[in-house]
Amino acid sequence: MDAFEIEHVSEVEVEDPVFIEGLPGVGHVGKLAAEHLVEELDSELVRRVYSTHFPPQVTVENGLTQLASAEIHAVTTDDAELLVLTGDHQAQDTAGHYGLTDTLLDIIESFDATPVYALGGVPTGELIEEYDVLGAATTDSQREELEAIGVEFRGNEPAGGIVGISGLLLGLGKRRGVPAACLMGETSGYLVDPKSAKAVLEILEEAVGFEVDFGTLEERADEMEDVVRKIQEMEQTAPAPPDEDLRYIG
Amino acid sequence: MDAFEIEHVSEVEVEDPVFIEGLPGVGHVGKLAAEHLVEELDSELVRRVYSTHFPPQVTVENGLTQLASAEIHAVTTDDAELLVLTGDHQAQDTAGHYGLTDTLLDIIESFDATPVYALGGVPTGELIEEYDVLGAATTDSQREELEAIGVEFRGNEPAGGIVGISGLLLGLGKRRGVPAACLMGETSGYLVDPKSAKAVLEILEEAVGFEVDFGTLEERADEMEDVVRKIQEMEQTAPAPPDEDLRYIG
Amino acid sequence: MDAFEIEHVSEVEVEDPVFIEGLPGVGHVGKLAAEHLVEELDSELVRRVYSTHFPPQVTVENGLTQLASAEIHAVTTDDAELLVLTGDHQAQDTAGHYGLTDTLLDIIESFDATPVYALGGVPTGELIEEYDVLGAATTDSQREELEAIGVEFRGNEPAGGIVGISGLLLGLGKRRGVPAACLMGETSGYLVDPKSAKAVLEILEEAVGFEVDFGTLEERADEMEDVVRKIQEMEQTAPAPPDEDLRYIG
Amino acid sequence: MDAFEIEHVSEVEVEDPVFIEGLPGVGHVGKLAAEHLVEELDSELVRRVYSTHFPPQVTVENGLTQLASAEIHAVTTDDAELLVLTGDHQAQDTAGHYGLTDTLLDIIESFDATPVYALGGVPTGELIEEYDVLGAATTDSQREELEAIGVEFRGNEPAGGIVGISGLLLGLGKRRGVPAACLMGETSGYLVDPKSAKAVLEILEEAVGFEVDFGTLEERADEMEDVVRKIQEMEQTAPAPPDEDLRYIG
Repeated sequence: MDAFEIEHVSEVEVEDPVFIEGLPGVGHVGKLAAEHLVEELDSELVRRVYSTHFPPQVTVENGLTQLASAEIHAVTTDDAELLVLTGDHQAQDTAGHYGLTDTLLDIIESFDATPVYALGGVPTGELIEEYDVLGAATTDSQREELEAIGVEFRGNEPAGGIVGISGLLLGLGKRRGVPAACLMGETSGYLVDPKSAKAVLEILEEAVGFEVDFGTLEERADEMEDVVRKIQEMEQTAPAPPDEDLRYIG
Repeated sequence: MDAFEIEHVSEVEVEDPVFIEGLPGVGHVGKLAAEHLVEELDSELVRRVYSTHFPPQVTVENGLTQLASAEIHAVTTDDAELLVLTGDHQAQDTAGHYGLTDTLLDIIESFDATPVYALGGVPTGELIEEYDVLGAATTDSQREELEAIGVEFRGNEPAGGIVGISGLLLGLGKRRGVPAACLMGETSGYLVDPKSAKAVLEILEEAVGFEVDFGTLEERADEMEDVVRKIQEMEQTAPAPPDEDLRYIG
Repeated sequence: MDAFEIEHVSEVEVEDPVFIEGLPGVGHVGKLAAEHLVEELDSELVRRVYSTHFPPQVTVENGLTQLASAEIHAVTTDDAELLVLTGDHQAQDTAGHYGLTDTLLDIIESFDATPVYALGGVPTGELIEEYDVLGAATTDSQREELEAIGVEFRGNEPAGGIVGISGLLLGLGKRRGVPAACLMGETSGYLVDPKSAKAVLEILEEAVGFEVDFGTLEERADEMEDVVRKIQEMEQTAPAPPDEDLRYIG
Repeated sequence: MDAFEIEHVSEVEVEDPVFIEGLPGVGHVGKLAAEHLVEELDSELVRRVYSTHFPPQVTVENGLTQLASAEIHAVTTDDAELLVLTGDHQAQDTAGHYGLTDTLLDIIESFDATPVYALGGVPTGELIEEYDVLGAATTDSQREELEAIGVEFRGNEPAGGIVGISGLLLGLGKRRGVPAACLMGETSGYLVDPKSAKAVLEILEEAVGFEVDFGTLEERADEMEDVVRKIQEMEQTAPAPPDEDLRYIG
C-alpha cells in the first residue's frame, strides 16, 4: 500500500462545488458540522482516502469491517453543490498531516472545488453564552467576504495558530493557489459542542448559499445541556484552570 | 536490510491452506491460540518475516540468538492444512503495521491461503463466566457462516474497532479481495487468558474443520485459576475500574 | 510537498554576507537576537524554507495565514551585509533537524554567505550577573578570532554539547567546509532573556563589524526585571534545583 | 546528508582483525570496556559513521566541535589486531538501529574483521560480588569456545533478549554469515560499573589472545566503591525494587 491512496467509490458529476472539511478536533465542532451536512442533505460517498499514516485500525459495523479512511461525499442542496470531507482520524504524525493534505488538495483540484472551508473549534476555556465564529483566510477578498457576514477576525487569534489538516488546507492551499478559509466556532474546549457546530454551519450557509435543517443538531445540543449544567455546578466549587493543550484545532 | 524481508526457511507443499494469525494482544488470546496449534499439531516452520519496524532485538535460546521476526508454520491436521503466524511482536509504529500486513498478504497470496482468520481477544473489563467469541468479517457470506456456528456479531462492537495486524489483515485483505475474518474471544483484559484462547479455537475447529487436543491449554487455564481467584477476592474490596486502553486487539 | 522546500520570496543582491541563525532555544536568546537585527536594521525577506518536519500548523495575522516556515532576511548595515534566519520552530524530529540544516547550508552556499554564526543560550541554572558569551567553532582560526574579542572557550563546555539546528550548522557545516561558530549567551535557563541576547549581539557586532541600536532590547530586558526580582524572592525560600533538561541550545 | 555516511579518517592496514563493539548501555559496561582498549593500547581512528538517526548534536572539545558519530579505531596489541567501535550514542529510533548495524556490518566485511564481539552489561538488580560474564552467539562453535573459557550460557537468559546495536550485530550478522558473539558482564544496573567492564575484558583477552593493563579501570572501580558503599547503606533501610527497564543491553 502506498502512503496515501485514493479510492474512487463512485463517479458523480458535481457542478462548481465548494469543499468542506470537518475532521476530529476541539469540541468535535468541525466533525459534527460536516457529518450533519452529510446526514441531513442528499449525499453520496464519492472518494475514500487511505493512508499508512492513519491508525492501523478497522471499524466494525454489523460485523463488517472498514479500514480507517477519510471520506469525501458529494452533497447536493437546492442552491449549491458541496464536497464534504468527514472521518474519524487526523494523521498520526507530522509527515502524515502534510501528505494527507497534499492528497486532499489533489482531489480538490481534480473537482475544481473552491473555495475550501475548513471547519473547527477554537477553545475559550470557559462556557460559551454567545457562539462567535472566528475566521482565518488565505486571501484578503475571502476575509472581507466572511467579515461581511459576521465572522470575527481578531489580530493574531487564535494565538496558537491552526493545527492539523484544517491549518494545512490553508497553508498548503495558499501555496498552490487554492483559496481557503477556516471557520472556527468558539467552544469551551471541555465538551463535544453541537451548538458551536450549528453556529459554524449558519455562517457556512450564508457564505456558500444553501439551507440545512438543524433539528437533529439542536437535539444533540439539548442532550449536552445537562452535562453543561453539571459542569457549571462543579465550577461553582472549583474554577476550571486554563489548559495549554486546548489550542489544537482540527 | 529492506524494511520487510521474507526468509524462506523451508519449502513445503501445503494444499488449500487457511491462514491463521495470532500475535500478542489483549489477554494474549490470539498468541496463545496460534501457538497452541503449532505446538500440539504436526508443524514445520516455513517462513520468517523480518522488519526494521520490529524492535531492534534478538532473543536468546541456549546461548544462540534469533533476530526479532514473525514466523509462519505449515500445520497439518487430519482434515485440513493451516498456515499459522506466530511471533512476539507487533510492529513498532503505524507505517510498520501497514507494511507488515502487506508483506503477510503477499505470503498469503503466494500460498493461496484463504480465508484468513485473525485471532484475538476483546476486553470486557470484568471476569468472564461464559466465553463468547465476537466476530468481524470482510464479506457477508463469511459473517453468515460464522454466525451459524455460534460467533456473535453485535452492532458496531467492538466499539474501538480492531487495531494492529489483526485489524489490518481484514482492512487491507478486503481491499485486495482476500476474504478475512476476526475471531475475538471475550476476556477480562487483565490477565493472560487460556480459556478465552480455547473458546476461540473451538470456533476455529468448526469453521475450518479440524481437531486439536486442549489438554495443555486447560492446564495453563487451571494455573490461571488461582490468579483469578485472588483477583476476585481483591474485587470484593475494590471494584476494578473500566480501562480505556483495553480496547486494543492484537 | 517535498520534505524540504525553498521559496524564493525576493531576489536581492547581497555582497559578501555572513549568515546568522537564531531559532527558538534556551532563554530564546538566539531568537531574540536574530529578530532584533531584522526589526532594527534595514531588512528584506528573501527566502522561506517549508518542511514536512515542521509542525502541521499555520499562524494567523490579521486573519491571514502563513504556513510554518523558517525565514531568511537580507539585512543591510552601514558596514556589512547579513543573512539572518529566524522562525518559530525547530524541526520536529531527528531526521528533520539534519535535513533542515542541509537545506540551510544549500542556501548558505548559494549566497556564499560565510562564516555562519549560530546564536543561542547556554543555561547556568542560576541568575546571571555578568553575561559571558561562550563559544564553539569549526576551525582554530575562528576560535582564535573570537577569543580575541572576549568570547569564552572552556574545556568541553557546554557539557551536553550543542543540540538542534545551531549544533548541526557547525557539525554539517564543518563536513562541507563551511566555517561556522556558535555564540552562546549565558542565561539562567528559566526565563526569556533579552540581556543575554544583547550580550551575544555585542560580540557579533565586533566579530562581523556593524552596529545596531539596543533600545528596544533593553526595554524588554527592563520588563523582565520584575519577573527576575520575583524569582529571586522565591529563591530565598526554596533554591532552584539543577535541571538536566536545560542543556538544550537552539 | 544520507541517512548513514562513512568517513574514511585514515587508511591503516590491519591484519586479520576482530571487531569489538562498545556503545552506551546498562552500566556503561560495553562503552567502558571498548574505550579502555582504545585508551590503553596503540590505537588510531580509522572510520567515523555519521547518521541522521543520531541525535542532532555536536560535542565541544577545546572550543572545537565534532558531529555526533560512532568511531572505529584500529588497535594494535602484541598479539592481535582489533577494530574497536566506540561512541556516545545509540541510534534514536528503530529503523536507525537496523540501518546503523547494517552500515557497521558493511565496514566489518570491508575489513574482513571477524568474529564480532559485542560488549555490554546484563542487569541483575542487586549488587554483584562475583562478576560472571553471560554469553550469546550466532554459532554453536563460538558458544563452545566461549563456554570453554568461562563464559556462562544459561537457558534463554537474558530473558528480555539483547536490544540495540549489540543485539542487531548478532541478529543481522547471523543473516549475513558474519560470526558474532555478545559478552555481557553482570552488573547491578544502578551504576556505571568498571568492575564489570574489567570482567568482560578479561574474557575478551582470552578469547582473542591479547593483554591489556587494567590499572586505570581499577582506579575508576575504586572511585565507584564509595558510591556502592553508600547504596549498600541505603539498602539496609529499603531494599531496591526490581526494575523492568533494566533489561536493556547496549
